[in-house]
Amino acid sequence: MHPTARHNHTPAFTAALGLPQSESVAVRVWTDLPVTGVSLKVVRVGEIEYLNAHPVTLPAFTGEGQWFEAELPVHAARVRYAWELRLPDDHLNLTAAGLTHGRRGFRSWFQYLAGHVAPEWAWQSVFYQIFPDRFRDGDPGNNVREGEYEYQGRPIEIRPWGAPIDKAGDVHAHYGGDLLGIEEALPYLTDLGVNALWLTPIFVSPSNHRYDISDYRHIDPHLGGDAAFDSLTQAAHAADFKVVLDGVFNHVGNEHALFRAALAGQERERAMFTWRDDHELPYHAFFDVPTLPKLDYLSGEAEQEFLAGEESVVREWLRRGADGWRLDVAHMIGKGGTDEGNLELHRALKRAARSEKSDAYVFGERFFDPEAALDGQGEDGAMNYHGFGLPLMQWLSGHSYTFTPSRLGGQELCTLLADTYHALPPQVALSMFNLLDSHDIPRALYRLGNDTRKLRAALTLLLAYAGVPCLYYGTEIGLSQTEQGAMPWCRESMPWDEADWNTDLRAEVQNLIRVRRNSLALQQGNLRFVLQTSDAVGFVREYTAASGHTEAVLALASRTSEPVPLILPDGGWTDLLSGEILSGEIQLDLSSGRLLGRGQ
Amino acid sequence: MHPTARHNHTPAFTAALGLPQSESVAVRVWTDLPVTGVSLKVVRVGEIEYLNAHPVTLPAFTGEGQWFEAELPVHAARVRYAWELRLPDDHLNLTAAGLTHGRRGFRSWFQYLAGHVAPEWAWQSVFYQIFPDRFRDGDPGNNVREGEYEYQGRPIEIRPWGAPIDKAGDVHAHYGGDLLGIEEALPYLTDLGVNALWLTPIFVSPSNHRYDISDYRHIDPHLGGDAAFDSLTQAAHAADFKVVLDGVFNHVGNEHALFRAALAGQERERAMFTWRDDHELPYHAFFDVPTLPKLDYLSGEAEQEFLAGEESVVREWLRRGADGWRLDVAHMIGKGGTDEGNLELHRALKRAARSEKSDAYVFGERFFDPEAALDGQGEDGAMNYHGFGLPLMQWLSGHSYTFTPSRLGGQELCTLLADTYHALPPQVALSMFNLLDSHDIPRALYRLGNDTRKLRAALTLLLAYAGVPCLYYGTEIGLSQTEQGAMPWCRESMPWDEADWNTDLRAEVQNLIRVRRNSLALQQGNLRFVLQTSDAVGFVREYTAASGHTEAVLALASRTSEPVPLILPDGGWTDLLSGEILSGEIQLDLSSGRLLGRGQ
Repeated sequence: MHPTARHNHTPAFTAALGLPQSESVAVRVWTDLPVTGVSLKVVRVGEIEYLNAHPVTLPAFTGEGQWFEAELPVHAARVRYAWELRLPDDHLNLTAAGLTHGRRGFRSWFQYLAGHVAPEWAWQSVFYQIFPDRFRDGDPGNNVREGEYEYQGRPIEIRPWGAPIDKAGDVHAHYGGDLLGIEEALPYLTDLGVNALWLTPIFVSPSNHRYDISDYRHIDPHLGGDAAFDSLTQAAHAADFKVVLDGVFNHVGNEHALFRAALAGQERERAMFTWRDDHELPYHAFFDVPTLPKLDYLSGEAEQEFLAGEESVVREWLRRGADGWRLDVAHMIGKGGTDEGNLELHRALKRAARSEKSDAYVFGERFFDPEAALDGQGEDGAMNYHGFGLPLMQWLSGHSYTFTPSRLGGQELCTLLADTYHALPPQVALSMFNLLDSHDIPRALYRLGNDTRKLRAALTLLLAYAGVPCLYYGTEIGLSQTEQGAMPWCRESMPWDEADWNTDLRAEVQNLIRVRRNSLALQQGNLRFVLQTSDAVGFVREYTAASGHTEAVLALASRTSEPVPLILPDGGWTDLLSGEILSGEIQLDLSSGRLLGRGQ
Repeated sequence: MHPTARHNHTPAFTAALGLPQSESVAVRVWTDLPVTGVSLKVVRVGEIEYLNAHPVTLPAFTGEGQWFEAELPVHAARVRYAWELRLPDDHLNLTAAGLTHGRRGFRSWFQYLAGHVAPEWAWQSVFYQIFPDRFRDGDPGNNVREGEYEYQGRPIEIRPWGAPIDKAGDVHAHYGGDLLGIEEALPYLTDLGVNALWLTPIFVSPSNHRYDISDYRHIDPHLGGDAAFDSLTQAAHAADFKVVLDGVFNHVGNEHALFRAALAGQERERAMFTWRDDHELPYHAFFDVPTLPKLDYLSGEAEQEFLAGEESVVREWLRRGADGWRLDVAHMIGKGGTDEGNLELHRALKRAARSEKSDAYVFGERFFDPEAALDGQGEDGAMNYHGFGLPLMQWLSGHSYTFTPSRLGGQELCTLLADTYHALPPQVALSMFNLLDSHDIPRALYRLGNDTRKLRAALTLLLAYAGVPCLYYGTEIGLSQTEQGAMPWCRESMPWDEADWNTDLRAEVQNLIRVRRNSLALQQGNLRFVLQTSDAVGFVREYTAASGHTEAVLALASRTSEPVPLILPDGGWTDLLSGEILSGEIQLDLSSGRLLGRGQ
């Protein structure tokens, strides 16, 4: 290997994360370049300060090269820094973008968050997303009854469990899944290995997806009501699960009492929505859908009610047992019918959540580039469509999530993933919510032409990637869809007859989850790309303890069945899924993904 | 050439710049890819909207390929947009970062500034930086007298014109240059071809550099006082010159009456500085230099006095004839001894400047990455050390401006330049203040080992680059320095005996300036890198009129004397310096730089 230099957020390189502002933290750089001197460069009051770094030794570090240490002043909420390495005939900058001869922009520099508290349990978790109406019907007695009510001008429909989705079903079709069903499935989920749940909305709501909430203070009686929630969260916590709820704070359902009161002219309630004279619809709404009036955070009333007040929805459900919030269309929330004030509102929301529960995990649905929102002051992370799931699946499947063909290659894929990873503070990058699919986009297996080898490749990279992995319910047993598109096709009911399961796939998913949950490198390690061809990609996750001992996992996958020649660095590796021992130059079949480990 | 796609800010692609918010603007994309459809993607309220683009023809466009047009809604102060090109088996994104298969982050997208007014005269200008004490002594009668006063505990020193700088001189040595000298030199400067002056500070101040100002309301009597300023600006304007002053608004000199009053305990004046008990120096100062107390913009008093008040320093001198402001250490200005509030203060400063003079040019000294400050709302541009002068000179000279050796190659140079260029809104990129050297860093000729061929290469790229070029006084006649370092060595007095001039160099600089001032492509064109090897770089500046007619200039330079083989695209080019006609595959000697033009 070329001589190089390394720095990251793990303990050998950064003595501690999140130290308070005004303290300082020991930071270290490793290099096998023939350096004559090393400096730490720190941005302060818009200037670059140079601080001398001195050689240090790490007791358990046995490799080549030298370590240098300097004290980084934690002088601001987010401190930007870089290393300068001087050679006899050259000097180099080490930033998150790697080694360069030129001085890169501050966006590429390393970043240290002062006084930042991360929800570390999330890093140790593998999430499982449940769309409650479709996961399991524990109590048929609470199901919606045929013709019980009309929704959007048409009676709701009852579907038997397992009946294929059809277009007419759309948001009207109810299958009867409920919270008791989820509680009953906890042993199944424990056996699978996941240990955290994200439930799409469970509050009182007329549609099957429940994103048009009528009452945020109660669980939908068709899901079992408040008692079922208490029972589920108790059982889940007893089984070492965390439960994250879906917070819809951009808009409410038009049957919500606050909106009814606003329509009736009540002043306080009118101030929670944005009214307009220049449009057919007299109020701002989510994509102008009349049933989804948009909340207006201008006056402060909505912020009090939903986000930050002592009795806010955010606080109430954390108090009642939830462990965090996934925030629906987080990027849209704002003032006056726009996204103005978005960041400040999310900061207020997180402060409220944390003061209620010190380790609450708060992450936004940010379908598009979330970089501007993720500076460490607001959400812990975001759903990683932009920087992981969408491009990865585009590369593997050969089309976008809307089925537009794409010839995205592995090199560009890695460039894109690396760029978005390095743009985030380390604790935020580790808190990103990674997923291949969800209730909003086509199922991964379907996108991959129902090719389970490709799905295993995708899952291997998902479970190995930096951030918190999440499986969409049914992925593990090969649940797919019958028609091209996203909704409603990606929301089939979960089959509970094992005859309908791909048990081989399920065993492999169990294996991947086991590896993930036992690996500090996968949960908290650095991310570095090491293989980038058009058809194959590979990255290493590394966690170097304060002693210098490094645990590393190499994740590899390709989109063809051609074996890929690889020279494995630095001695022996173990295939963490098969137990095979590997070293030197080898031909790897990566088409269903490989995880190689060392140092564990 | 590979089939590709293009979009930029020039009229064929963007019908008009700076249209008001709530209007829309026709934008176009050209491509010779076999597209089946084209969409414009626009970021609005955090979502991406797709708008259909339709084919159009441009009357004077004669090349291959097709044009598509869409209406971009100008819905925000800065609108981000991109193009999607659909092919039978692929789809591509066109952003400022080029064509990609993946969806890049918004930082890479094109940007449109609503209601933005650019100081277009600056785009048509070639600047000349004058350090007044060293340029020309018009009136020996106003010179500082030997021992006239003490400065920093030591009497000031008088030096005869042409005496070499010595270390003892430092900030004490006065050579006697003045404003009358500059006025006398206007015919010289007109002959050289420059048409705008940036004067380092000219207000009352004890040091030779005058960055420690005692009185911002008067011109230093040793430069000729207020009358000399009126005379110079009248003469300069009559000769079609603009005059930009140096605004020191981060700190004042400790002899300033406001600071004296603050020390004496006056309340209003005390609020203009930041006092502290925990430091040897009881007030914040520029790098803790006691003679440079830092202004505190927390209370609003300093903002009123210097930046934005009806009688502010910024307004007063624009009213009296200045055409713009260069802002000293612009990145440091802020509240409470820090840079807090920096952007808002610069926005207030620019609003005040523009309301006083509608085309005032305001640019900051931002020695480090200025991207965060340059969103179009504050300064028009910044001194382009980070994104042009420092990396270019590092590549050409083989060392940094502090003489640390560097093996920066041409490929990385171009990556760095392109990245910083594309990060800025187009009108800001065209308003960046480009320079090779200044009174703060070593002279370019000295850094280049006094090799005038390399200097000509650097000047060729400077005069051709996107942004406003500036020459440091004396560069054109080969003024260098006697010792390694920056200050005071880079501030030799300008020789006025032609026997001391490199007249060949001067003729070549005249030629370069002539080409720049006659080229719309160089003043307002797009920037695109076309040659990137370790030792040679080349870029093209292109301006495509609404008709489709394109004016292009290809700028080429290398750091070796090896001829570089080049295949010139698309037919004949003219060497704009020699008049030679070129086409096809040729061997170009680029070691002193080449400018090839087409379509003028």
